[in-house]
Amino acid sequence: MNNKTTERLLAATQDIWEGYLNHPFVHGIADGSLDIQKFRFYLLQDYVYLFDYAKVFAQGVVKSRDPEIMRVFATSVANILGGEMNIHRSYMSRLGITEEDAERVKPSLNNESYTSYMRAVAAEEGPAEIMAAVLSCALSYEYIAKWIVANYPNADQHEFYGEWVQGYASEDYAAENRKLVAYMERLSEGYTESQLTRLIDIFVACSRYESMFWDMAWNEAM
Amino acid sequence: MNNKTTERLLAATQDIWEGYLNHPFVHGIADGSLDIQKFRFYLLQDYVYLFDYAKVFAQGVVKSRDPEIMRVFATSVANILGGEMNIHRSYMSRLGITEEDAERVKPSLNNESYTSYMRAVAAEEGPAEIMAAVLSCALSYEYIAKWIVANYPNADQHEFYGEWVQGYASEDYAAENRKLVAYMERLSEGYTESQLTRLIDIFVACSRYESMFWDMAWNEAM
Amino acid sequence: MNNKTTERLLAATQDIWEGYLNHPFVHGIADGSLDIQKFRFYLLQDYVYLFDYAKVFAQGVVKSRDPEIMRVFATSVANILGGEMNIHRSYMSRLGITEEDAERVKPSLNNESYTSYMRAVAAEEGPAEIMAAVLSCALSYEYIAKWIVANYPNADQHEFYGEWVQGYASEDYAAENRKLVAYMERLSEGYTESQLTRLIDIFVACSRYESMFWDMAWNEAM
Amino acid sequence: MNNKTTERLLAATQDIWEGYLNHPFVHGIADGSLDIQKFRFYLLQDYVYLFDYAKVFAQGVVKSRDPEIMRVFATSVANILGGEMNIHRSYMSRLGITEEDAERVKPSLNNESYTSYMRAVAAEEGPAEIMAAVLSCALSYEYIAKWIVANYPNADQHEFYGEWVQGYASEDYAAENRKLVAYMERLSEGYTESQLTRLIDIFVACSRYESMFWDMAWNEAM
Repeated sequence: MNNKTTERLLAATQDIWEGYLNHPFVHGIADGSLDIQKFRFYLLQDYVYLFDYAKVFAQGVVKSRDPEIMRVFATSVANILGGEMNIHRSYMSRLGITEEDAERVKPSLNNESYTSYMRAVAAEEGPAEIMAAVLSCALSYEYIAKWIVANYPNADQHEFYGEWVQGYASEDYAAENRKLVAYMERLSEGYTESQLTRLIDIFVACSRYESMFWDMAWNEAM
Repeated sequence: MNNKTTERLLAATQDIWEGYLNHPFVHGIADGSLDIQKFRFYLLQDYVYLFDYAKVFAQGVVKSRDPEIMRVFATSVANILGGEMNIHRSYMSRLGITEEDAERVKPSLNNESYTSYMRAVAAEEGPAEIMAAVLSCALSYEYIAKWIVANYPNADQHEFYGEWVQGYASEDYAAENRKLVAYMERLSEGYTESQLTRLIDIFVACSRYESMFWDMAWNEAM
Repeated sequence: MNNKTTERLLAATQDIWEGYLNHPFVHGIADGSLDIQKFRFYLLQDYVYLFDYAKVFAQGVVKSRDPEIMRVFATSVANILGGEMNIHRSYMSRLGITEEDAERVKPSLNNESYTSYMRAVAAEEGPAEIMAAVLSCALSYEYIAKWIVANYPNADQHEFYGEWVQGYASEDYAAENRKLVAYMERLSEGYTESQLTRLIDIFVACSRYESMFWDMAWNEAM
Repeated sequence: MNNKTTERLLAATQDIWEGYLNHPFVHGIADGSLDIQKFRFYLLQDYVYLFDYAKVFAQGVVKSRDPEIMRVFATSVANILGGEMNIHRSYMSRLGITEEDAERVKPSLNNESYTSYMRAVAAEEGPAEIMAAVLSCALSYEYIAKWIVANYPNADQHEFYGEWVQGYASEDYAAENRKLVAYMERLSEGYTESQLTRLIDIFVACSRYESMFWDMAWNEAM
């Protein structure tokens, strides 16, 4: 399979993505040393993030004219509001947080900036640009979790953080991502250099927002 | 349960809805006399309609700030692109129409007018207005199918049209509608008279478009 | 100047546009025989149409990433809500209709269908598609008014309908249209055949809605 | 005149707004000591900001159903893309920057976050929420410029920064703001406490983004 577009997106963000692997928050999950209070803050911010992330995919349904693409975006909306939230709900239950409490959490300003950026792209642009916007979150979590598994052999067995690592390093999660990448390629078929540059700009911006999200989590910054 | 808003919507469209029961297309389904060619035309138009109908619900996901409401709209997107299309796909298979053929069908101008109206409301207004827009199609199909069952005892056993009648007269379909009505009430809680008037205007317009859809089907008009 | 895209749009709608010239409403303006009551109905529907027409151009501002294109759409919003309404306001004053009365007029269902179609395209697609949507109204009025002037030498001097004919046959109006056509070409530069087909579909649909608008006016149909 | 809603917005952001007056960038404009390189960076970022700011008002045209409100938003679109850019263009000419150069400037990530937030609110919510989003920028510039004039008597005569101070401390600018405030009140008439809380959240977020914009300018941060 030829992933030309996605390879260009990843090449443009190599430095930013390597930065994730040096982030104290990520290291704390990897070696199990992360303060649970920081994880709790992160988890709740990530939980409210998902509702806005689902809106970006829902705009994909609105903007597509191809039934197959509509179904791809619609499936992601359902997965995010259903399946992906299962990891979050499992941790919420372990931390004694009810769904009602979680839904009352306010997004931090960085969180709001990140989802606003994706939602504005989704409202104003087309399906390929929407796919480029959602891909940074989807793929970087797999990248981080697999790096943890490769470098911290016991990380996925950690009694608390193991479930997080397993979830994002799983074959299910990777399979979902391969599907998104395949559609990124298809949606950008025949794209001109200037259109590809726009996709790269979006992917870079979202990757920078991912960095800021880890910083926000580490600093518990609202 | 108090369905104040929905009762006002239905009161405003009583005449239009009674008109459905006198429509030759509906009678043809009821007594089994409908020309299959007309049904084929209708089925394909209704099939492409569903993709745009799903977009209206997807805008409901985008416009809602309440997780529960987001899930209601997201579930409908999934149901429409999945479940509701099962009736259509079953008929398509009986009529020897592939999904690829069906997806290449162009919507007629009346079809386009109807879904454009709902999509424009969905793009420009809020969750309650979106719910008012989708409700006319959802509820009038149950109304028509139950009237057929009540008045044509063998209609749901008809070898060809029975499946259509059963689908829309089913308890599953009614349960889905009761859920939408409950959310229509909740979304319009505290609405002022002028906001309710807007909901009624939307519901009336959509009910008129339903009439035009039956006319279009009967005349096989593009 | 090369107007390749616009020429294809016009070629695809030749029959529909010739139909305008045979329409009793257009003939009534041309020879001055049109019942003023019909014109009054038309004028008020066209007045409320303009508010929704302005929304389509406003979406052009939202969807454009090029400052020059943003200014083109923004200028049209201002012209429509300002200048183009001058003809309407002049007639309203002659007919004793206040702006308040006019703004309370409800759009007919055909009117709503037409603007909903354009507003849905504008919400879901890009600047080129928005330009294709607005162009049918803009250009067909020039086409009709110039045909009237060419075939009814005194039409632009008619004490009542002359102002309408002069307005849309004027050099100012034509210059505005030439600008829109130039941007139609620029926005569709490098478009693939399948993208051009979509522009043609939009332009054809809007041209059909123009026909229905004249019918609606002639029949004073709500 | 009763400005109940706006007074609540301002009360909620008192501390954030006082922070503007202590910002080194603002002080540098006030006493004329600001490094021109920093101002140049700020000016170009503010210039590209205005294009996205205009999109927020354009969404106001799309979302309004009241002709008077549509005209308010449309006038602002025209003013921003025309009039307000005059101050910027005057400085660009003094700094030897062409419009072409300026339009090629990329927004910094903070700039993008701020306008994305407003654009996402504008795409997903209604006219009152849009007005709350644009008001923070509009009013805080008047607040800052008038504070400078009151505390630095020669600031508006400074050979370089005087034009900036005069522009935003002018009666014209204040009159434009009074109009926006009057419409903020009108659009929020009859709003429930929970709807007002949403307006406050939006205004607070935008006021925080204003702080970040001054930081970004001071640090020339991309």
